[in-house]
Order: sequence, then C-alpha cells, then structure tokens
Amino acid sequence: MKKIRAAVVGYGNIGHYALQALETAPDFEIAGIVRRNGAENKPAELAPYNVVKDIRELQDVDVAILATPTRSVEKYAKDILALGINTVDSFDIHTQIPELRRSLDESAKAGNAVSIISAGWDPGSDSVVRTMLQAIAPKGITYTNFGPGMSMGHTVAVKAVEGVKAALSMTIPTGTGIHRRMVYIEVKEGYEFDKVAAAIKADPYFVNDETHVVQVPCVDDLLDMGHGVNLTRKGVSGKTQNQLFEFNMRINNPALTGQVLVCVARAAMKQQPGCYTMIEIPVVDLLPGEREEWIAHLV
Amino acid sequence: MKKIRAAVVGYGNIGHYALQALETAPDFEIAGIVRRNGAENKPAELAPYNVVKDIRELQDVDVAILATPTRSVEKYAKDILALGINTVDSFDIHTQIPELRRSLDESAKAGNAVSIISAGWDPGSDSVVRTMLQAIAPKGITYTNFGPGMSMGHTVAVKAVEGVKAALSMTIPTGTGIHRRMVYIEVKEGYEFDKVAAAIKADPYFVNDETHVVQVPCVDDLLDMGHGVNLTRKGVSGKTQNQLFEFNMRINNPALTGQVLVCVARAAMKQQPGCYTMIEIPVVDLLPGEREEWIAHLV
Repeated sequence: MKKIRAAVVGYGNIGHYALQALETAPDFEIAGIVRRNGAENKPAELAPYNVVKDIRELQDVDVAILATPTRSVEKYAKDILALGINTVDSFDIHTQIPELRRSLDESAKAGNAVSIISAGWDPGSDSVVRTMLQAIAPKGITYTNFGPGMSMGHTVAVKAVEGVKAALSMTIPTGTGIHRRMVYIEVKEGYEFDKVAAAIKADPYFVNDETHVVQVPCVDDLLDMGHGVNLTRKGVSGKTQNQLFEFNMRINNPALTGQVLVCVARAAMKQQPGCYTMIEIPVVDLLPGEREEWIAHLV
Repeated sequence: MKKIRAAVVGYGNIGHYALQALETAPDFEIAGIVRRNGAENKPAELAPYNVVKDIRELQDVDVAILATPTRSVEKYAKDILALGINTVDSFDIHTQIPELRRSLDESAKAGNAVSIISAGWDPGSDSVVRTMLQAIAPKGITYTNFGPGMSMGHTVAVKAVEGVKAALSMTIPTGTGIHRRMVYIEVKEGYEFDKVAAAIKADPYFVNDETHVVQVPCVDDLLDMGHGVNLTRKGVSGKTQNQLFEFNMRINNPALTGQVLVCVARAAMKQQPGCYTMIEIPVVDLLPGEREEWIAHLV
C-alpha cells in the first residue's frame, strides 16, 4: 500500500509530538520537517530526516501538518494549499474558526486540495463530543470544564506583565464552565510582588476570573504537560428530561494534539477538495486501514 | 424551508419515543405511522396522525424510521429502500452489522436512497466515541461497561425458561467490560424456584456471566427504563503512555434511541445513496439548520 507522505511544518512542542505520532503510524512516511533554521542546530531526533527551510525543498508531500503558532496558520496554509498539498492544523481561536474555514475553503478548492482546521482536543475531539451530545439531547446545557492543566495563552499573557521573570498559569475547573486561575511567578529584581500581582489580576485575560497569584522560587519545577477536560451535558431527548452525559480526559496535552493532527492528516486524504472542521469528517476516516474492519470491531 | 417527511414503522416502545422526538424536531413533519393493526385500537396520542398498515398508503415519505424488532429490520428496509425511501434503524446484533450493511448498501443504491443502520446508543452514539478514542490513542484497550439497566435480550431469554411467569434481567457493570446479571422472576404455580433458577443459570445467555436469580412477588414493580454506560480507554498517543478517556451516560433507554433515530433520519437526507453506520457520518449532519452556525457554536 502506498504510504501517505507527510511534512511537519514548525518544530516546537506540537511538531515534536506530531512527529512521534507519525513515526508510530502504520500508513505514513515522513517527507521531512520544515523549520525556520532548516538543518542548522538540528536536534538529535531529527537526524534521520530531511530538515529544510521551505516545504518546496521536499519531494512529493501529500499533507503538511502545521505545528506553527496559531496566528501563522492561515498564511502557511494558503501558501501550501496553493501547491496542491493538503494541510491540517490545530488553530485554536474559537471565535475566528468560521472565518478561517471560509478563507481556506477558497484556497483549498483553488489548489484542488483539502484543509482540516482546528484539529486538536479543544477545538477538535471535544468538538465532536459536543456536537454529538447536542444532537442526541437537543435541549439542555453543555459545560466544558478544562484542567487542571497549564494554559499556554494565559501563561504568555502573564509573562508580558512588567516585573515578571518567569510564569505559569494553571486552569482549575470549578464546574459549570467556570475556571479559577492559579498563577505562579518569579519576580524580577527591583519589583514588588504585590504590585506585579495586582497588574496580573487587572489584565484582560484574568480580570473576569477568580485569580490567585503565588510567588515561587522556581517556576520550572512546577511545569507538567498533563491536562484534562470534564465535559457534561444534561438535556432532553425527545420529550424525556434528565438525560445525563459526561466525557472526561486526563492527558498529555501536546501528545494528544500531535496524535489528532496525524489522524486528520490521514482523513484529509479521503475528503473532497475544500476546508473542514473535525465535526464535518466521519470519525472512521481518522483511522488507518479498511473501513469495514473497523465497522466490525467498533460499531 | 421544506420539512423532512418521516414515517415511523412499528409502534412499540422505540416507535413511541421516536414519534416524540419527531414532534419536538423543528425540521420534520410526520407523514404517518405504520403498524400491524393499522388504525385499529389506535392509541390516543396517535389521534392527529395517519396510521396505516403499509407505508405505500402514506404520501411523499422521505425517510422511514424502522422501530421494528431487530430481526425484521432487513426485510422492512429492503422493501422500503426499493420504493426510493430512505431508512434508518437501530439494528443491534453487533456481529451481523457488516453483513447487514453490505446487503442494504446494494438495496439503497438500487433504490437511489440512503440507509443508516445500527443507530441507537450502542451500537450508535457509543460507536462514535469508541471510534474517535481508537484514533486519538491508537494503542490501548477500550472497555464498554453497561448499566445498571434492564437488558431486553436477556429478559426475553429468561421469559422463555419453563416455569417463569414474569422476568426482568438487569445488567450490572463490574468494570473492564465484565457484567453481573441480576435476574428477578415470578415463578409459575407448580414450579420450584431452585430448579427454575438453575435452568436460567444454565442458559447460553447467562452461563458465562456471574448470575443471581431472585424471586419477587411482582416484577412489574421493579421496571424502570433508565440505563447507563461507562466507556473507558487508556492508551498511547504517539509514543506517550497513560492517556485516559471516559464517557458516561445515565439515560432513559428508549428515549435516547428514539432521538438518535430522528438525528440519523435527518443525516440520511444529506448522504449519497448507500448504506452507512454512524461512524461513517459527519456528526454535524445529525443537527438541523445551518452547518456554519453549529461550527461557530460547537467547534
């Protein structure tokens, strides 16, 4: 069977784990890694691979896994779709997803290629669960409770506050979609903790949430990439009340995102040209091998 | 917007709840109910509807919801697909699903229609969760734990045992996909409880499970249609171990099945001719209205 040739574009945390997921997938081969510095200072684990600065330097790429910062996704995707190469990404600004989908749908169709966007765990696999629960209990409320786990966006926001030397913002679920923020910081010399803490709490990222700022000697000692979700829905099926649903995960965050990206890279090979979110893709397309085998085992 | 015209075929428990789900759906209208006795002894809640013995007596049916016994699904589906009417069912003999799909795929294509099979909660919505978890943690084990709740199949098996006057078989999960059977019976006059209990335990339905048989004065007093699922997967994403997932439901059993059937009746209108299981259908197709609206709210 011909294998799917994938390139990983961007080699931070997500790129690293996406590569591991490709290495374990039975139906992929790795066309190469695209990173800003190309082969310069190439990490040891990339020794077997072609590492380049531009995807045009790689041969016969079927699909590009975009492991770039979220705000660069659109630019990279448009460039790569124009080459007729499928793209997948884990774009995670929820409010901008419909707009990105319209924009990349045009590029994908023009390039006769497929783009699957916002494919991580939230947005991503959680979205599939939310959509199915909305369908099977049409009236009711869904709460997505995140954590405990590190929030990348909030951590970056804290680091930008004056006087912060190092930071970690943890998301702690308190139920019904409400979250507490636990912020751990090291303070730069010459700054007062109380003033820095007040500035963090006044930041737009934190001002609406219960936020606790704690000074620690070494933020790095607290770092752990475990994360979690508790997604609940209580709703009505037909005219029957009190239907109760719950989806829980306790996972390594970038490892799950990397694996989901590889699943949708596979699914991209099976769709018509255009741009899709995960809720628009049959879940069986996420799996390798024969559809009928999976139907026999999983349905 | 033109509404989808649905017929309910069979009016037992599932038919009753499927009708309620249709009544609450914004995008359906009820073409009629097909039952063996037609309009004879029509239940009060069917007063507003056309109740007939044969689906050919109904006008402009887009989709037939088959709420018949599982073993009659294939025959009804073939007849109705030949009329060019889509069908959906909750066929639940897991081992025979691939065969039914092949058979109805042929009939559906011949009739230029769509059939979605095995669409309840298991097989059905659980299958969607199992498939997604298999994809996002490709190595590992999934356990589907059922209950506590009444098993229809096991209850029917107990009722067939000589000396049983009335019966209820409850499925109790004990974890890792293993189940205890709690069987509640009334014994016919002239039979000894101990002998009847032994015969139940020796039945192929029970011989491999821990089974407890309890004599009660009135089985009917114990009947409740609540059921549950606890589906777990512990697996590996890429090369990262110990990824933990869990899906729980506590639901009214036939109400959820009825609602799922209405969701797939809607999805059937959006597929190419052929036969599908739920894992082959994008979850967004289960919902009414505009795809882009749902993407904005749920992804």
